This record gives sequence, C-alpha cells and structure tokens, in this order.
Amino acid sequence: MERTLVNEISGKPGEKVLIKGRAMVVRKLGGLSFVVVQDRSGSIQVVFEKDSGIKVGDAVEITGEVKKDERAKGSFEIAGEKAEVIANNVEDLPFDLARNELNLTVDNLYDFRPLSLRHPKIQAIFKIYDLLLKGYEEVMREEGFTEIKTPKILEAATEGGANFFQIKYFDKKAYLAQSPQFYKQIMAGVFERVFEIGTAFRAEPHFTTRHVNEYTSLDAEIAFIKDFYDVCRILNKVLGKIFRKVGEEGAEYLKLYNTQMPEVPEEIPYVKLADIKKIIEKKYNYKISEGTDIDPEGERLAGRYAKEEFNSDFIFLTHYPWSDKPFYTMPSPENPEETCGFDLLLRGMEIVTGSQRIHLYKMLMENMKRKGVKPDGMEFYLNIFKFAMPPHGGWGMGSERLVQQILRLKSVKEAVLFPRDVKRLSP
Amino acid sequence: MERTLVNEISGKPGEKVLIKGRAMVVRKLGGLSFVVVQDRSGSIQVVFEKDSGIKVGDAVEITGEVKKDERAKGSFEIAGEKAEVIANNVEDLPFDLARNELNLTVDNLYDFRPLSLRHPKIQAIFKIYDLLLKGYEEVMREEGFTEIKTPKILEAATEGGANFFQIKYFDKKAYLAQSPQFYKQIMAGVFERVFEIGTAFRAEPHFTTRHVNEYTSLDAEIAFIKDFYDVCRILNKVLGKIFRKVGEEGAEYLKLYNTQMPEVPEEIPYVKLADIKKIIEKKYNYKISEGTDIDPEGERLAGRYAKEEFNSDFIFLTHYPWSDKPFYTMPSPENPEETCGFDLLLRGMEIVTGSQRIHLYKMLMENMKRKGVKPDGMEFYLNIFKFAMPPHGGWGMGSERLVQQILRLKSVKEAVLFPRDVKRLSP
Repeated sequence: MERTLVNEISGKPGEKVLIKGRAMVVRKLGGLSFVVVQDRSGSIQVVFEKDSGIKVGDAVEITGEVKKDERAKGSFEIAGEKAEVIANNVEDLPFDLARNELNLTVDNLYDFRPLSLRHPKIQAIFKIYDLLLKGYEEVMREEGFTEIKTPKILEAATEGGANFFQIKYFDKKAYLAQSPQFYKQIMAGVFERVFEIGTAFRAEPHFTTRHVNEYTSLDAEIAFIKDFYDVCRILNKVLGKIFRKVGEEGAEYLKLYNTQMPEVPEEIPYVKLADIKKIIEKKYNYKISEGTDIDPEGERLAGRYAKEEFNSDFIFLTHYPWSDKPFYTMPSPENPEETCGFDLLLRGMEIVTGSQRIHLYKMLMENMKRKGVKPDGMEFYLNIFKFAMPPHGGWGMGSERLVQQILRLKSVKEAVLFPRDVKRLSP
Repeated sequence: MERTLVNEISGKPGEKVLIKGRAMVVRKLGGLSFVVVQDRSGSIQVVFEKDSGIKVGDAVEITGEVKKDERAKGSFEIAGEKAEVIANNVEDLPFDLARNELNLTVDNLYDFRPLSLRHPKIQAIFKIYDLLLKGYEEVMREEGFTEIKTPKILEAATEGGANFFQIKYFDKKAYLAQSPQFYKQIMAGVFERVFEIGTAFRAEPHFTTRHVNEYTSLDAEIAFIKDFYDVCRILNKVLGKIFRKVGEEGAEYLKLYNTQMPEVPEEIPYVKLADIKKIIEKKYNYKISEGTDIDPEGERLAGRYAKEEFNSDFIFLTHYPWSDKPFYTMPSPENPEETCGFDLLLRGMEIVTGSQRIHLYKMLMENMKRKGVKPDGMEFYLNIFKFAMPPHGGWGMGSERLVQQILRLKSVKEAVLFPRDVKRLSP
C-alpha cells in the first residue's frame, strides 16, 4: 500500500490509507486511544478502539480509514486499524514531547537539542527560518540579484583584525571570514546585483542574548546606485515582499508564538544617528556614552520611538560616524565626520548593517591612510578599484536575529539549530 | 531620467532611454562608434555617430533613442546621444575583455580573478551556478524538504579524522566541518526531509582537477525510506526537474559552451560496484587495483559504459564495500561485506555520494566496534539513535563538480569564484 501524506488526506474521505510519522501525542479516554501523528506535511489524529501500543515519540506506520469529522483539527481524522512501531525510544525521553510548552532550562534546551528540536513549538522556529531563507532566495532573484558563494577561508585577517578565528591551513595560517564583504563588492562589479547566504564567523568573546560566534548572514551588494538611500529602498522593498510571504505561508507557526509578522512600511522612517541620540536623551532621559555609536538600550529606545512616532516596527539609523565605520565606508558628502553607513532596527534591535562603499581608488587610499589601515593582504581587493568600479553599496543581515525579533525569542541562540558560543561547541 | 534595464528596451521603441552598465566591446567603423553595454539584465549595442569617449571595461551611463533593427542581437539597438563614463580603468586591463576567449594561463586566470570574472564566458559559468542553486532551492521545497543551516565549527574531528582543518576556538581546539552528516541525520528525525546548501571544508592535500579544499555541498536527508533505492529515486527526480529548469533558463549561457544540459533519464541505470569493475576489465581492459573501490579512470570508463549501454550521461554505482564506507553506512542486507552506499556519476565523474544510514542503536554500536571507531566526541549524535530514529538516508552533492561536468570544464576550480587549494588562499 502506498503512503499517504497528512496533507493529502482531505482528498480521500472514506478511503483506507497508510500514514507514516512520529507520534506526538498519545491519550486514552474511555476505551479509546488517540494518537496525533506528524509527518513532513502536517499532523492528524488517529483514533483506535483499543490500545494501539504506540508511545509518545515513536516512529510509526498506521493504516486506517479516513473519516470526516468537523470537530477534528483539519476536519479529518483516521479510524486506526493497524499500527506498527518502526522505531521506538530505547530510553525515556528527557522531557514530555506532548506538552504544549517544553519549559526547559537554557542548558537542557541545548544539551538535549537533537530531541528538543522535535517539539512542535521549537520546530516552528525553524519552519519560520526555512520560510525566511525561501523568501530571501526568491525575492532577491525577483529583484535581479545573482546568487554567489564566496570563500570562508581567508589568507589574511583584514577586516578588523582581532575578531577572526585562526585556522591551520596545511603549513600556513589562515582565517575564517567574518563576512563576504570584499568578495561581494568585487562581484557587484561583475553581476551588478549579487546576494549570498553564507556562514559568518565572529571570534567575539560575547556573553549576550544577541550574539553567537557562528551565524548565517544574508548579504547583498548593488552597483550603479545613486547614494546609500538606493540601498535602503531596495532593502525596504525586499523585506516587504519577504515578510508578506512568510506571514502567509507561516501563519500556523506564528500562531504558536501568538504573533504576526511585523508590518514593513512602504517607506521605513530614517533618522540620523546623531539625531536619535538627542531624541532618546530628551524623550526617554537616556544618555548614550560619548564615543559609542549606540548601545543595546539606545537601540531599544530608538525602536520605541519608531513605534510611538511613526507606528513602525522598523527604523533606519543613518550617518554613522566616520570614526566607527570600516575604511571602505563612503564618507558623507555633507559632513566628512559622518558616513553613508546605516543600521536597520527591527523592534529595537539591529538586524541589518549597510552602507555605500568607496568606489574610487584614490579616495579609498586616502581614507585608509587617515584610518591607519595597512593594505597588506588586501591587495587583491584594493586593486579592483583601479578598474572601473561603479558606485555601489550593500548590506549584511543576521538571519537568526530576524527570527529572534519576529518571534520575540529571548535569545538569538533559540533561532540557531546548534548554536556556538564561547562555551558551547556541542552538540 | 529614470534608468531603463536592457531587458526592458524592447518595450520602448522610439523612446529616449537612460541605460547604465559596463562597456564590454568598443569598435569603430567608418565614422561610427559601436559600444556593447552589459547590465544585470543583458547587453545591447549602442551606436554613436562620433567617438563616444568610452573605452572597453568602463562603467557608463548612456542616453539615446531605442531603434528597432532586425540585424541587431535582440532586434534592438540604441542611437547614442550622450555618454558619461562614471568609472574608468586607471590602469590597462591585464587582458582584452572584448575577445571571445580569454585564453589566460591557469595562474593568471585566478590571480586576476576579480577581473577575469567580468568576461562573458566566465560570467556564464556563474550564471549556470546561480541557476543550479535556484533549482536546488525550489525543487527541494517542492519535494517537501525543509532548508536547514548546521554548524561548521565542530568540537571533534569525528568523521574520519585526518582531513579536518583545525581552528583555534578561544582557549580550545575545534575543527571545520567536512560535511553536515551528523546534523542532517538528526534533522531528518525532526522534519523528515531536510536539505542544506553549505560550505564543506576538506584538508586533503590533493593536486587534482577534481578537488578543492573548500566547496559548496548540496546535502539532503530523508526519513521513512524503505531502502537506499528510495534515496536514489528522489535524487533522480530532483535532478531531472533541476536540469530541465537550468536548460530552459540558462540556454544562452550553455550556448557559449556549445553544450546543452545532460538529459536525466526517467530511471538512471544502476550497476553494482563489483559488477562495474568486472565490466570495465572485460570491456575496456582496465583493471582497478585491489583494495580500491574505484579510481578516476574507472569512473571515466563507467561513464563510457553508461553512454554505450544505456545512452545515459548518468549512472548509479551501488553496494560500495563495507570496508570503504563510514561507520554510519547501512550494511547490505544481502551481503554484509557490501553496503547500501552509492555514488552517482555524471559523464564519468562522481558528483554525488549517498547511502542509507544505520538507524538502530545496537547495530550502530556493533558496526563501530567492528570498524574500531571510538565514540568520543560523537555522543550527541550516537545517542539520538536511542530515540526512535526512523529508517533514513541521504546524499551530498558537489555543486561545483556538477557545473564542471555540465560545461565540460577542465578543472573544478573554474566553477569556484575564488578557489582554495593547497597553494592558493588568495584572492
């Protein structure tokens, strides 16, 4: 007998079917036994008139008859006839998979990760994550971007220095890429619009709810721009399309978190960083310390301001100071102490960093000199600006932070299948 | 004036338009000057009645009138009025971008990579690559797979040992993942069908045309299979759909290589590895040395046999010997010296490795013992088999090798934007 998927069952009322999946809930009531079975397409309740022998967590094959029942979730259930356990739990599960909430301690959540991921509420995080990737892949192509894959092993730790992981590469030293920055810029000179979904490695010794040491970055680079607002506008459009798709296709997962996708405004409001600092001090009586561009509390309050003032979950903070941005960031034409660099906040947390880049060789050399950056190991990148690089800019977006902010998760680690931090390298 | 993309020009005959892009060809003939401009959507010829001042490789903005001209590529050209060079080459390009073939030495091809990638024939490789990624992303979802991202930094070098790159991870040692093997198996226990597009790192000191030390692997894992043929059948279907899409959407790029997509048979032929070795020896008088599963020449001849016997560019080689496969490979139920492991060859080169995995804890422990594999550092993975893992299997496919074989490139490195080998870490 051929297998029927759960999402095909509504087309087979009265038929005998074979389903396969995992038993997520097992209940007994009167003489009846109820088993909720989940497969890759959904879940359905099977009712047996005697004990089915199935335990929570088992992988099962069940044959039975499809019954229409308006009280059932999805309006159908199966009258179970034969049940076979094809794989069972040799030991007791360390938690009850059938409970609505897992309520594990943070350590247990990650120590038992291969099992805790089976819980529907945790599955939902990674279904939203899957839809986010799908959205980015589809929408970026709709907008004329070519997908690229750039190297993660680098000869030199060039983009900052201290926060690179070092590798033993045969008889040499090498480094893990913090971002595809140099390569995506080069590729914007080839395909005009490029995007990459790739691993980023950050050797930052952080212990926060917003950092992990390995994450998946959604990058983009765009040539033939007029200014950095072009980059922001394309990002705005892309996010709008993605969020609509995820909202439609992910409704059932969002519901488990009692939330909906944040609305992406037609035009996300812009505020200069220098201005938001004044606003925050005046309105919320919070002063960001000198020499800091913005801190997490500042971001939170900027998000609050966006909501109160513009009814927006998003806000662009623009014109980051020259002293805080990397050497390749285009200085602001109006004020050389500021740059064409921006962050995008979602619900008071930075989810995107972007900028217009310097595309003129001479300007780049001068900016490096002013910053005291040495060209060693970057020649392949710097030379490209001798060869007709059009004006360009782009962004890097943290995929896991997006999911964290959408589902209002306490830590970004909850949005990583197997998170890596200073102390955690396993599972 | 708003920019018009090249692929929008056919809708604007007689109109004045502004185009932006790179000058790929510049020719003078009589008093006329011809400039082929490429943007992200295509290329078009612009005709000026005097010297435009544009040089090959420049980034330009041109205004002019759209003219229908049946002799022109795409049936349209632009009568150029105003030309502005927005970025030019400060030094001479190291090769002529306008020539049909670059004909660079291998070293120059990669040393000048940021520039050689701008050549249309090299661009075409990465347009096919982009379409391949697009195909995998779309088709895997159509087939019910969830996209996952698994960690590339591992606590232990567990899947073989010698070929791992070592990292300094804060005050610990760590390793770069060779494949997502353990994680995708765990995730098949969560979502039944999962796929990953991710970086794989191999510290193999190879100097061949078929190896790189960093590549992009197209992985999949499938639960609730009957046997490994289920895995092969799904792979067969997925490849068929992808290759059709790439053939349709990539026709212009394939044409530059005088080729078409290989046809994926409805059912790719299967031959047991032990049998193909006998066939190769008998038919082609080539003996694969004892103790080797198959070598590159053997693969080439297996590909020749597939073509001659089945008129197929593809062939599955199955039942790889137990002694050559990793400990997690399901032994063959008929012959314990063989496994449920297979390779898929395209035009005589391995592009996929796959197998059914052992899903029973006891069997896995016994197999490890027989192989002398220690459990240290793998506990998180091994323990999952105590918890109702359904029968499952999957594959890893080399994305760059696929493109190499499709376009018949001499080396897999030609299909990597910025390849990494023992000697090359830059650009």
